[in-house]
Amino acid sequence: MNDTIVALATPPGVGAIGVIRVSGNNTFPILNKVFRGKDITKAKSHSVHLGTIRDDEEIIDEVLLTLFKGPNSYTKEDVIEISCHGSPFIIQQLIKLLLNQGARLARPGEFTQRAFVNGRFDLAQAEAVADLIASENESMHSAAMKQMRGGFSDEIKKLREELIHFASMIELELDFAEEDVEFASREDLRKLINNLKHLIRRLTESFTLGNAIKNGIPTVIAGKPNAGKSTLLNALLNEEKAIVSDIPGTTRDVIEDVINVDGISFRFTDTAGIRTTKDTVEAIGVERTMAKMKEASVILYLVDMQAETRKDVDKEINFIRELNVPYLLIGNKLDEAKPEIKLQLEEHDALFISAKQKDNLENLKSALKELVSLDSFKTGNTIVTNLRHYEGLMATDQALNQVIEGIDSGISNDFVAMDIRNALHHLGTLTGEITTEDLLENIFSKFCIGK
Amino acid sequence: MNDTIVALATPPGVGAIGVIRVSGNNTFPILNKVFRGKDITKAKSHSVHLGTIRDDEEIIDEVLLTLFKGPNSYTKEDVIEISCHGSPFIIQQLIKLLLNQGARLARPGEFTQRAFVNGRFDLAQAEAVADLIASENESMHSAAMKQMRGGFSDEIKKLREELIHFASMIELELDFAEEDVEFASREDLRKLINNLKHLIRRLTESFTLGNAIKNGIPTVIAGKPNAGKSTLLNALLNEEKAIVSDIPGTTRDVIEDVINVDGISFRFTDTAGIRTTKDTVEAIGVERTMAKMKEASVILYLVDMQAETRKDVDKEINFIRELNVPYLLIGNKLDEAKPEIKLQLEEHDALFISAKQKDNLENLKSALKELVSLDSFKTGNTIVTNLRHYEGLMATDQALNQVIEGIDSGISNDFVAMDIRNALHHLGTLTGEITTEDLLENIFSKFCIGK
Repeated sequence: MNDTIVALATPPGVGAIGVIRVSGNNTFPILNKVFRGKDITKAKSHSVHLGTIRDDEEIIDEVLLTLFKGPNSYTKEDVIEISCHGSPFIIQQLIKLLLNQGARLARPGEFTQRAFVNGRFDLAQAEAVADLIASENESMHSAAMKQMRGGFSDEIKKLREELIHFASMIELELDFAEEDVEFASREDLRKLINNLKHLIRRLTESFTLGNAIKNGIPTVIAGKPNAGKSTLLNALLNEEKAIVSDIPGTTRDVIEDVINVDGISFRFTDTAGIRTTKDTVEAIGVERTMAKMKEASVILYLVDMQAETRKDVDKEINFIRELNVPYLLIGNKLDEAKPEIKLQLEEHDALFISAKQKDNLENLKSALKELVSLDSFKTGNTIVTNLRHYEGLMATDQALNQVIEGIDSGISNDFVAMDIRNALHHLGTLTGEITTEDLLENIFSKFCIGK
Repeated sequence: MNDTIVALATPPGVGAIGVIRVSGNNTFPILNKVFRGKDITKAKSHSVHLGTIRDDEEIIDEVLLTLFKGPNSYTKEDVIEISCHGSPFIIQQLIKLLLNQGARLARPGEFTQRAFVNGRFDLAQAEAVADLIASENESMHSAAMKQMRGGFSDEIKKLREELIHFASMIELELDFAEEDVEFASREDLRKLINNLKHLIRRLTESFTLGNAIKNGIPTVIAGKPNAGKSTLLNALLNEEKAIVSDIPGTTRDVIEDVINVDGISFRFTDTAGIRTTKDTVEAIGVERTMAKMKEASVILYLVDMQAETRKDVDKEINFIRELNVPYLLIGNKLDEAKPEIKLQLEEHDALFISAKQKDNLENLKSALKELVSLDSFKTGNTIVTNLRHYEGLMATDQALNQVIEGIDSGISNDFVAMDIRNALHHLGTLTGEITTEDLLENIFSKFCIGK
């Protein structure tokens, strides 16, 4: 596992500089063969050296080498970072040279995988590195940073320690089985497990929020054909992502895009208008719209105040209420509104906009933000953003239920102990105390090359 | 000029790491305010420090700072490079924070401009940095590296020193004008100037080559409609850049692309087929083709061995010969060739390929490379690749001609001295001994941000 790996660590493309990362047992000998400058084998860790990298006598580039001697490096191995001119050609030549000298190309995430294997951080923290790099807004960034710095791991560790104590007590009883002693008060155990389950519930409940933070809060824009849905999405996006036309029924595909409102991402879905139709293509679109609306966290329901009737609007408000999804009722085409429709909508606390004129969109954004107010996010609590973690917590909860059932039904301590070990196993996979080849490969293959 | 500038130095986008560069008088105070870790104001130059960058108490990222204390840095000012997680969001937040602390965004090339102003290298070397980053193949890379390491500057310096000596002798004579002495033998001067002109000629002649290295050797693929020109270009590019169809006359625009053959770039131009036509759009295409062929350094002329007649082929060979441009005669559609046409082409040393089957393309590439064999490149001579340098050398040559004319016609030494000073001025702009604001801005604005 200590062979020497190399990869470009900065994004591909032309830039002022590029950084090539080398890690492993032979990092220093390999660089020493091709670098002309100070003798790096005698230099201190965390020092920087100017020189040239040469293939025989031909200079490939003037570079800065930054030396990290293991274990004081990202991977805890010997690491050298080569800062070179940001030319794809030069980077290619440098990597080729290092491969010729005995390094091999790193797999995606292999540097971070080595950091994990060498104990620099646990698995949940390693996973947070990828999330941190992918973070696109303040809330994603904050959740990933908290996780990378051990927030999630600390909570899991607490759970695990209590369970381990619990398990060892039960197992101690097994050793003294003939004497019928009870080292662990069943009442205390029940209380402890309930506390654990409570903590797990808090974490798993945060996943809905965590998922929304990571992928954007699913928000559907709905309404009758030609109510101005695509125009609103475009106005919000400030660009022409959707095809806008005056012909009702233009939008048939479900179009998605993410908008950042004060650090919270909303994943907007523009939809086909809702009406009965004979056009099969459009009918499929309407069906999709209904499905999307039921899945949504928030619906923006648009009413065309210029064209619709009071009867229509009554029907629509009833329809949207019955979906039981948080919604904003929005009267569109404010500049051309029929007064009686505006009055009717006012009674239902509607918001009035003109998507075309981009009027009142800031109010709409504020209302949207208030509707989903992410209270738990603001409290600084740990948030689960990773599906793998969510599933691990759910499996732990399941196992704890079996422990409780076991105690209740008075089954043999052997089985109770086994169920506890099972819960411990699931918790262990979260932070990486328990891993398999497949699990690690699955996690790290999602990283970018060079990390 | 010593205010503190900041810019992302690595290419934009997602990567394992990003590097932000800060340079100027306040580099250390600014970073000291936001960095938590070792006290960087007390740390040594060329050392690396792990810590966090915070906006108030909120952690933006865990980073590595590399410290360079002026004048031991790229710009010769205090420089800090921040190596952070390669997330565009994080990079944006970090740069925003540094701007709030009093840094300003660097203009393109501003770091290198400061390096030049502070005497790290001369102007020709600074320009080579941009060429080095843009280098896409071995010959561009080698020419830029030679120039950055002072090859071109050394030649210019030699010229300049000899001329300065010359000028001071003439000016000395001016001081003793009444005594009619001659410190500088006019015969020696003439010889010296001829030597200088010879050196300048060698440099300016290398520009054709230098330009070809930098932009690719202009290579035109020509032939009758449907001879397989687009198919050949595609086969060479290994991708579908041109629209290929069986309908003669499909290609109307001039399509260009660069192909790397063993470290030499060829800028291929696919063209509309040559024939008389009534279609005005196509007629314009044919006209452009003729113009392109005359400008080309190399022509690949394709003959359709399946469809053409002996009479046609005779005409074509005569036509291509008369252009007086190096060419390769190529018989295409080898698998369906008429034997008599193949025989006819063999008499003219044609190369046979099947563009569609990708047969014999390696031979074609070898022949192409041989045809343009860049002998002067291989000799390790200095090559002029920069249009500005070429023009400066031409202007110097012009001024030297006037010196010679002045001596020949026996005009006053005042004028001879002025012409020499004029030549010195042009040489000085090349390496930057003589600069103007406009010149500098023009040069450095072509750099990428962060360099």
